[in-house]
Amino acid sequence: MKRRLLLVSNSTLHGSGYLDHCQQQIAQFFGKDVKRVLFVPYALHDRDAYTKTARNKFKTLGYEVDGIHEAADPVEAVRKAEGIFIGGGNTFRLLKSLYDNKVVSEIRKRVLEDGVPYMGSSAGTNVATISISTTNDMPIVYPPTFGAIGLVPFNINPHYLDPDPNSRHMGETREQRITQYHEETDTNVLGLREGCMLLVEGNKATLLGSTKARLFTRGKTCVEYDPGSDLSFLLTDAH
Amino acid sequence: MKRRLLLVSNSTLHGSGYLDHCQQQIAQFFGKDVKRVLFVPYALHDRDAYTKTARNKFKTLGYEVDGIHEAADPVEAVRKAEGIFIGGGNTFRLLKSLYDNKVVSEIRKRVLEDGVPYMGSSAGTNVATISISTTNDMPIVYPPTFGAIGLVPFNINPHYLDPDPNSRHMGETREQRITQYHEETDTNVLGLREGCMLLVEGNKATLLGSTKARLFTRGKTCVEYDPGSDLSFLLTDAH
Repeated sequence: MKRRLLLVSNSTLHGSGYLDHCQQQIAQFFGKDVKRVLFVPYALHDRDAYTKTARNKFKTLGYEVDGIHEAADPVEAVRKAEGIFIGGGNTFRLLKSLYDNKVVSEIRKRVLEDGVPYMGSSAGTNVATISISTTNDMPIVYPPTFGAIGLVPFNINPHYLDPDPNSRHMGETREQRITQYHEETDTNVLGLREGCMLLVEGNKATLLGSTKARLFTRGKTCVEYDPGSDLSFLLTDAH
Repeated sequence: MKRRLLLVSNSTLHGSGYLDHCQQQIAQFFGKDVKRVLFVPYALHDRDAYTKTARNKFKTLGYEVDGIHEAADPVEAVRKAEGIFIGGGNTFRLLKSLYDNKVVSEIRKRVLEDGVPYMGSSAGTNVATISISTTNDMPIVYPPTFGAIGLVPFNINPHYLDPDPNSRHMGETREQRITQYHEETDTNVLGLREGCMLLVEGNKATLLGSTKARLFTRGKTCVEYDPGSDLSFLLTDAH
């Protein structure tokens, strides 16, 4: 399998600029062969402004950016893409727009069959997995399904957050929410804290970045993984 | 319109027990005429344990509790109910179960036409509104629609949370999430902080409890309301 993915937890890390914390990994991921990256801004309302932000950042790394919404035919734009980057925002809006524009299966095909590198950040990482059922976002629009592009056989919780021991707020913690998900299904959930990301190359998966990830497996104790950890087993596990 | 609703933000307030913070309002709301309350535990996985918790609490207030899942025919149970209480948990699971059990329209009819008192807490408050699009919960299951029971013509965000100025977490604040919702539609959103609740009697709505509520209207500045405020205008506003 030619699959190459860079699945980033968060677009902006506290105290730094847009994509600053993962710029080295981005440059290494898209490498020298890719010149133009197809950017999917569907997760935010203002697609032009969002594309401009991405374009400015990628320019500093040596890449041109095309907004998929600028193309006459978005499916054709995916067919021609050298690299794909789906940005963060609202996951429900993003998934609905991907289906509305009929690009879900074409992105899957291009990434899994043709080896086009796929980068996702936050919501763009959610939609790369089995489903958006472990997003943190508000369900502001109704997508035709929660099923997503399915580039990996598990789910991710981006912006994973540890409970605040001083909080007096009684809403569920992130861990409690993921436990509720596991009352319904047995799909593995990888909690990516802000600052870390998952690199997938074929059947090899590696945790990169500066923070740990937490793996939730139904009926088992959570496991913490340090940056540099080999998480390839997640790609072969049917869960 | 006979409608009587008690829409509570949260089931448990920090430092107190289950429904302790609103027990006076509950007793006043159901009053002396109601003897038995139909409890809907669909938002949690263990319906028996949840019903036991509600039953024990309501017993101290002088009410018997019947779990809707214990009835042979849930629609018939709604038809016979003297009072209804839908508890909190996961809003997606709750809404899906309400549709799976075909009780949505029957609850609407009983409350709006027959004047059966309806109490909701957290997710049970979300499903009383136009839609669950302003829930905080994780979309662990896929309901047939986000449209809800529609007992009031606006949406509520329960457990409303002010931004933490010391947070280094870069996920969206609650206000940012509701602003994203208003990029899609113009339905009013009432943010109920933990500790407050909305009492609706016919066309009169009053904020009760110990904390303020924050009203989000598309394109306008947010407005804060103190406990005791008359919010009846929300019931006539088409938004």
